[in-house]
Amino acid sequence: MDQKPINIQKKEQDDLAPTPQNTPIFKTQVGGSKPAAGNPAMELMNNPAITGLVQGRLQGLAGAPSEYIESLPKEVKARLAGLQALQEKHIEIEAGFHKEILELEKKYAKLYDPLYERRARIIKGDEEPTTEEVKRGKELLRGDDEESKIEEVEEEGETDPEKKVKGIDSFWLTVLYNHPQTQEMITERDAKALAYLQDIKVEYSTEEPGFKVVFKFDENNTYFNNTELVKSYSYAQSKISGDLVFEKSESTKIDWKPNMDLTTTVETKKQRHKTTNKTRVVKKTVPAESFFNFFETIPLPDEKDDSEEAEEARERLEADYELGEELKEKIVPNAIDWFTGKALEYEDYGEEEYDEGMYDDEYSDEDEDDDEDEDEDEDEEGHPKAPVGKDGEAPQCKQQ
Amino acid sequence: MDQKPINIQKKEQDDLAPTPQNTPIFKTQVGGSKPAAGNPAMELMNNPAITGLVQGRLQGLAGAPSEYIESLPKEVKARLAGLQALQEKHIEIEAGFHKEILELEKKYAKLYDPLYERRARIIKGDEEPTTEEVKRGKELLRGDDEESKIEEVEEEGETDPEKKVKGIDSFWLTVLYNHPQTQEMITERDAKALAYLQDIKVEYSTEEPGFKVVFKFDENNTYFNNTELVKSYSYAQSKISGDLVFEKSESTKIDWKPNMDLTTTVETKKQRHKTTNKTRVVKKTVPAESFFNFFETIPLPDEKDDSEEAEEARERLEADYELGEELKEKIVPNAIDWFTGKALEYEDYGEEEYDEGMYDDEYSDEDEDDDEDEDEDEDEEGHPKAPVGKDGEAPQCKQQ
Repeated sequence: MDQKPINIQKKEQDDLAPTPQNTPIFKTQVGGSKPAAGNPAMELMNNPAITGLVQGRLQGLAGAPSEYIESLPKEVKARLAGLQALQEKHIEIEAGFHKEILELEKKYAKLYDPLYERRARIIKGDEEPTTEEVKRGKELLRGDDEESKIEEVEEEGETDPEKKVKGIDSFWLTVLYNHPQTQEMITERDAKALAYLQDIKVEYSTEEPGFKVVFKFDENNTYFNNTELVKSYSYAQSKISGDLVFEKSESTKIDWKPNMDLTTTVETKKQRHKTTNKTRVVKKTVPAESFFNFFETIPLPDEKDDSEEAEEARERLEADYELGEELKEKIVPNAIDWFTGKALEYEDYGEEEYDEGMYDDEYSDEDEDDDEDEDEDEDEEGHPKAPVGKDGEAPQCKQQ
Repeated sequence: MDQKPINIQKKEQDDLAPTPQNTPIFKTQVGGSKPAAGNPAMELMNNPAITGLVQGRLQGLAGAPSEYIESLPKEVKARLAGLQALQEKHIEIEAGFHKEILELEKKYAKLYDPLYERRARIIKGDEEPTTEEVKRGKELLRGDDEESKIEEVEEEGETDPEKKVKGIDSFWLTVLYNHPQTQEMITERDAKALAYLQDIKVEYSTEEPGFKVVFKFDENNTYFNNTELVKSYSYAQSKISGDLVFEKSESTKIDWKPNMDLTTTVETKKQRHKTTNKTRVVKKTVPAESFFNFFETIPLPDEKDDSEEAEEARERLEADYELGEELKEKIVPNAIDWFTGKALEYEDYGEEEYDEGMYDDEYSDEDEDDDEDEDEDEDEEGHPKAPVGKDGEAPQCKQQ
């Protein structure tokens, strides 16, 4: 199981019995000679299958050992074609499997729904948890972990009746800010608008395969008139496997209040007239970084378009689908764990993916250097790769 | 949706209405000042949720905004505890979901079984595909792609009746050699033994949650006496989510024929006696890189053991589980696509994960330099990130 280099090196004397395929078309050398076992001599592999494969690789043929396949006897090619036909049947059956899983997801969405509804009411302040729930929740928050930072939940806290608060303020903003992917998207301007976010719900479409993520906002929201922003994702049947794959996403258009559009900023420039020497102020609306760009519908570029813009759109779509998936699978179901930060302990986010490149050269003020350093420390301590055996557990298995 | 730096910078005048939480305990500065929009002044964020979060981060608390949570009024803490209690119910329901998926997997395993059985017979040469299957398979192999390298399947191929071959030689060796993860594990010595591999099957356990991967070998195998090598994986209920997680894996012990153990090599050393000046030959059996190390049962280290050995065992276990998952989900179901290399076109293997580090300093023979370069070329062309819109498709959605 070692993730070590290929070590194809020693030709042995017990070669396989000669077969029609036992005359490699290409002799080529792979791997390295490991200076061990007293015999560092490099010799060629003699297995035509491997030779063919390696050859395919050397030709950069996307791993397709085409030369090897072409070299095969006609009857073997026919058998491979036969297997390909069987594979088509496999894909048909597998498509049924993925449809059944989607149905299972919908079934469980209904079972979760009362919990989510109650969560929303507690967050909004329309309902309070029962004494039993609070007691149990405190036990859970305290956990077995002696070092638990939230141990003192029961003892501490302000009790001044004058300062009585309703619900849990900025719950969803905090959730989103604690997730690496959404954190990157949230600007300070966004934070103020996201403080009006009261609930995020996932709903399944009844007509076509797919789901919607519904962001519910307080009607007193000072940024836009919508009380719901909806992002819909649709699936399509894969042509190359039995999977359902993302096909497209669509969003509600945000009805911004005047001058409140967070996805743009206004650049102001003074221009001096060359002859009259008078100055005038030129205003220009330019796109701005914002979480709310998530609600921009990105058109799917043409399959054959390999322009830079098309590539960029594909990357944005990929990130868009990833976030939809993340909202559906992790953020909405485990919102409380994102709020407390516990989710970061059990979810394994690749450091490369989220942490590196979080700052780029464009941001070079000295003021931020301290924070940058601190953030880097946190990368090492804060996002540990969940070790096997943590909580007695191995990594999640991807059932599907 | 841009994966850009956090851009929390401008304090606006329209601050939120004051709340009891609106007096940040910590004032801290995050993100960078983007020199744009005419106002590069850096100011502090005023949202206590965010301030608390950022503070937690600066303290390296695994993202847990504990200071913020501790600072919350008692009644808000009680509500959070309430949500935690709801989350426990969510986990209970979710556990049912994952059990149902496992049942669905078993149901479909039975539906796939006749296809896998027939595939095995065609590979072994016990059965031939029908004319219709061959015809359909050739159409599929040819595809819509005009550049298809396997287009000439029908026309070419040796037909010399003297060279009549049975089945598809080295089918599973080729499959495993074409998968990045197993390719790294296969030495030339292994390749000769894996040429006896006749089938790989996945079976589900009836008693406890889990599955087995059964490697079936030709009985004329000259390396070991087993005709089956079985790797069993068991799942356990996660304590922190509703998921099933890998708990442990176990393997058949390989009954190697004398001097054929591929997981060891014998090092021979000549030693000269200092006084008599006589030489003697010392033989020492040392562990060797081999695919067959996959059949070594790795003991789960104690949770609290943070020694280097324990860490190494955890890493090996993680790779072990990954490969089990990969065999179950990708390699066994789509074996023909791994044989032809087509799977590499639709599966997206991170370059970092498999390609970098494939060669290390230990392997420094000049002879291999060419291959190394070629391999690097192939990394760019051969493992493209499946672009959104390829085959009109977006990336796979992870249904679960």
